[in-house]
Amino acid sequence: MDTHKVMTRKETRVVKIGKIKIGGGNLVSVQSMTQTKTYDVDSTVKQIHLLENAGCEIIRVATSDMQSAKAIGEIKKQIHIPLVADVQFQYLCALEAIKQGVDKIRFNPGNIGSKEKVEAIVNACKDKNIPIRIGINMGSLEKDLFEKYGKYGVPRVMLESATRHIKILEDLKFYDIVISLKGSDVNITKEAHLLFASRFNYPLHVGITEAGPVWSGTIKSAVGIGSILSEGIGDTIRVSISGDPQEQVRIGWEILKTLKLRQKGVEIISCPTCGRTEIDLIGLAAKVDTMLKLVDAPIKVAVMGCVVNGPGEASFADIGLCGGKKQAAIIKQGRVVKTVHEKEMLRVFIEEIKKVLKEKKFEKEIKNIRNKYE
Amino acid sequence: MDTHKVMTRKETRVVKIGKIKIGGGNLVSVQSMTQTKTYDVDSTVKQIHLLENAGCEIIRVATSDMQSAKAIGEIKKQIHIPLVADVQFQYLCALEAIKQGVDKIRFNPGNIGSKEKVEAIVNACKDKNIPIRIGINMGSLEKDLFEKYGKYGVPRVMLESATRHIKILEDLKFYDIVISLKGSDVNITKEAHLLFASRFNYPLHVGITEAGPVWSGTIKSAVGIGSILSEGIGDTIRVSISGDPQEQVRIGWEILKTLKLRQKGVEIISCPTCGRTEIDLIGLAAKVDTMLKLVDAPIKVAVMGCVVNGPGEASFADIGLCGGKKQAAIIKQGRVVKTVHEKEMLRVFIEEIKKVLKEKKFEKEIKNIRNKYE
Repeated sequence: MDTHKVMTRKETRVVKIGKIKIGGGNLVSVQSMTQTKTYDVDSTVKQIHLLENAGCEIIRVATSDMQSAKAIGEIKKQIHIPLVADVQFQYLCALEAIKQGVDKIRFNPGNIGSKEKVEAIVNACKDKNIPIRIGINMGSLEKDLFEKYGKYGVPRVMLESATRHIKILEDLKFYDIVISLKGSDVNITKEAHLLFASRFNYPLHVGITEAGPVWSGTIKSAVGIGSILSEGIGDTIRVSISGDPQEQVRIGWEILKTLKLRQKGVEIISCPTCGRTEIDLIGLAAKVDTMLKLVDAPIKVAVMGCVVNGPGEASFADIGLCGGKKQAAIIKQGRVVKTVHEKEMLRVFIEEIKKVLKEKKFEKEIKNIRNKYE
Repeated sequence: MDTHKVMTRKETRVVKIGKIKIGGGNLVSVQSMTQTKTYDVDSTVKQIHLLENAGCEIIRVATSDMQSAKAIGEIKKQIHIPLVADVQFQYLCALEAIKQGVDKIRFNPGNIGSKEKVEAIVNACKDKNIPIRIGINMGSLEKDLFEKYGKYGVPRVMLESATRHIKILEDLKFYDIVISLKGSDVNITKEAHLLFASRFNYPLHVGITEAGPVWSGTIKSAVGIGSILSEGIGDTIRVSISGDPQEQVRIGWEILKTLKLRQKGVEIISCPTCGRTEIDLIGLAAKVDTMLKLVDAPIKVAVMGCVVNGPGEASFADIGLCGGKKQAAIIKQGRVVKTVHEKEMLRVFIEEIKKVLKEKKFEKEIKNIRNKYE
């Protein structure tokens, strides 16, 4: 049964970052940032290739010095996804990055120092049709706004800070703007997004910043980015955990998959097991998961322990297995198509999954099923 | 700076499960379910002790047979948290579990078979002041309701199914009810919760069912449970992944911590690093994380890579470290208190964390700082 239904999403302006469009109902894209020294072209390109492979669709590089800004042209030649220059205060680096063909600039106009410098960057962006992301960060907000709104007013401080930077660009008749409102506090960050979305229609780059080490950072990012997206807010996402940036990209995709905003790979539904379970369900689910890891087809596979919720949940899946006493039922479109002994269930189940891939015209993905599960 | 602020939570009835109160603004509790055969008392008690140790506050056991129901009294004697009997169709098991002193029954009155049987259970619950959880599951919904609402109407089917079961109990003047509305689809599950919360004020037990293997199940649970809680909905939670139930409890706590609904252990804020980072930030964050894993004090520790967002984010933390070139600044209440060489930074940072624990009256937690990080 097809019960996919995506939440109503807030209508935003469309902004083009190279070949990727964000906002205005375009697919929510996954982005990341390199950890290398940008001027080290070889290392940077190598990391970007790994990230592309993991599913990264837009990549950002730190551009805090002229040597890094000058490297952008060479990096661009060697990669396949749009490149964003992250500039903090150095307006000459921004100008150089634009000259080198960067696809987006991330800088906050209020931090650049003078109106003339901002105007120079904005004019260069206009000439090349390059958008600007204003990145509001809970860690670098204006002191006067804190005094105005008090310690519980951080979301309003973030909104007003964004409003100030946006005004600088709008006064220069520049509207090709993306906004981010990042914080390490999920409640504050979500509230800031709700406030912003009720006031502006610029597309939002969503992230929970400084989310922490891998395990807790994964959960924090999933709760934070997930709860904002589930409000229909957000046009591109970036997961920030202290770990391998490829893992950040994989987590980003998984959040989008969970919310049915994107499809990538197989969705596995499996139960936590309980005293009713008579087969090694956790082992089986882990094996099926490993074997299907590289299969990129939007099918839903259920691995269920017992007859209480098993057949019902399996009916929402394309193919399901439901454990019994030393045996298992294989369920397709809500009907039991086969009953197999426990010893045979993994092999037969994988055969049935292959049939589903064939029926759904993903025959070429069959070769991506791993033969081993360890 | 204290920026903790919990979202406004929906007002619900208070329901008592043994010593734990849920609903009505009580703390959101973390629960789990055993994977053992309930009649195997030794294995069940052993697993419950592990779960208690991980932070489980309410435990449920499958009670599908009389042997398991009869074991409940003995299990209760050996554990320290409230016990819930999960009954599917066998009303005699429910009656036996109540006789054995169980603290809550999970059963759906519409599935028991006759009015007389439901009445027998309800009367037994009234006598002993035991609440009932009605567990609506996307995998076992009524066919007639599916026909009524169509394939995109699953949230309404879940609501109406709950309404039917609730009516049976209310007609018997029984109101000591907890509801769960679980599905493996996050969007559907969230929508069902929003519909339910706008209609009823019974407390909600929140979970994403059959969330899948550990990694994807963690993300799905965090997105699903997190986005429901962040609407102010939910009074107790259970994470269902195919894996160790202790891990389910740890994930549950981490979701609540992320949303500031509960406090447990240290919160670590650390950045993903970028081309600006000059120290081994990821390694340092992982080490600090490992060393503080067993420390149960609600302090916030920031480990930041550079001066762009570092000092600002660190000012939201109780203690922070901010990397520079071969050195690091230690920041307390927004002020740099020390600058140390890279080689010394971990040791000195841990010393400063000890001082914070002492100042915040968590001196007894200092002994829980691990000396090693591997």
